Amino acid sequence: MGSKLSIIVFSGTEDKFIPLGVVSQAAAALGFEVRIFVTGWAMLRLLKKAAQPTWPKEFESMVPALMNGMKSINAPSWVDMIKQAKAMGAKVYVCSMMAQAMGLKKEDFNPELVDDIVGVTTFLQEAEGGQVLFI
Amino acid sequence: MGSKLSIIVFSGTEDKFIPLGVVSQAAAALGFEVRIFVTGWAMLRLLKKAAQPTWPKEFESMVPALMNGMKSINAPSWVDMIKQAKAMGAKVYVCSMMAQAMGLKKEDFNPELVDDIVGVTTFLQEAEGGQVLFI
Amino acid sequence: MGSKLSIIVFSGTEDKFIPLGVVSQAAAALGFEVRIFVTGWAMLRLLKKAAQPTWPKEFESMVPALMNGMKSINAPSWVDMIKQAKAMGAKVYVCSMMAQAMGLKKEDFNPELVDDIVGVTTFLQEAEGGQVLFI
Repeated sequence: MGSKLSIIVFSGTEDKFIPLGVVSQAAAALGFEVRIFVTGWAMLRLLKKAAQPTWPKEFESMVPALMNGMKSINAPSWVDMIKQAKAMGAKVYVCSMMAQAMGLKKEDFNPELVDDIVGVTTFLQEAEGGQVLFI
Repeated sequence: MGSKLSIIVFSGTEDKFIPLGVVSQAAAALGFEVRIFVTGWAMLRLLKKAAQPTWPKEFESMVPALMNGMKSINAPSWVDMIKQAKAMGAKVYVCSMMAQAMGLKKEDFNPELVDDIVGVTTFLQEAEGGQVLFI
Repeated sequence: MGSKLSIIVFSGTEDKFIPLGVVSQAAAALGFEVRIFVTGWAMLRLLKKAAQPTWPKEFESMVPALMNGMKSINAPSWVDMIKQAKAMGAKVYVCSMMAQAMGLKKEDFNPELVDDIVGVTTFLQEAEGGQVLFI
């Protein structure tokens, strides 16, 4: 049986989506079963009408250097990295409880990024026995 | 042998306690052995004289929508979700090193939430072989 | 086969380096194979010319109490805890993609802390089958 990597994405600041994309893409390329469970503030970046990116207050002054650096090495955006991961089998779920609390339905989310809205119990069952990150 | 899920809780902003409660409650309901190790700023919310809730600066403007949304779906508070998880066998520990550094003793913590003060080595031994999250 | 604990360190605020040091040191002392993969803002604290420490805005007022408390119990610094973990076999890697994006080379990093610059794929392969934290 292959390896499984599941990722709970809550924080929602833009910087954290970079390791989400990088780790998801690399794990999927290694043949890992990748499951991403998006909740909290992070959910708002996956909407069709996505929220504006938000950077951590502590590192705002470093953001242009990071963005320019990522561009200079032709790094793909996190959106493209997640799409690559999905093309290799990764699944992206939105937390049903949080979506309901914020009045969001499946049709509000970007269908290129989000596969389904599921409950945390379903996610934990799929993640069982594998590695789990909380971002 | 059943599944084990252990959670290190450090960050301490109020938003992060929601997934802590949700994941702990759901994992315990699935029959997972759940262990929560509270340290850092998060510790201060489990005191008898609990610190005031602190929200992440980046998402302060979204807090009323989240709070009202949680209320509108009758979601339990994170405190109640942790109590539910504990009723199903979850254990909540406070980090002995951090408690000592902040001059806190077992009797300073809410006994409805905190089972014991333990060292990180004990926690890692209990968590060994299971999934671990850092929140 | 012994236990493995791998840690992705991204956030970069100074508080998060404390649990990094504590968990790494304790896990290494338990005989776990410890791998630390430093990326994002956290990378800048491991440079020879290390960035100044940055504390989370939400808890700035609590920092002196925490620092004084750590001193009062003679807790080692996170740098010393990582050195202790390394003396027991832990390895510290810097993310090659992020280093390249920020124009950083192996010689820019503190050689007492950083063992090598590696890609995320290498890290995921070393971490496979073990516990993983995202800090």
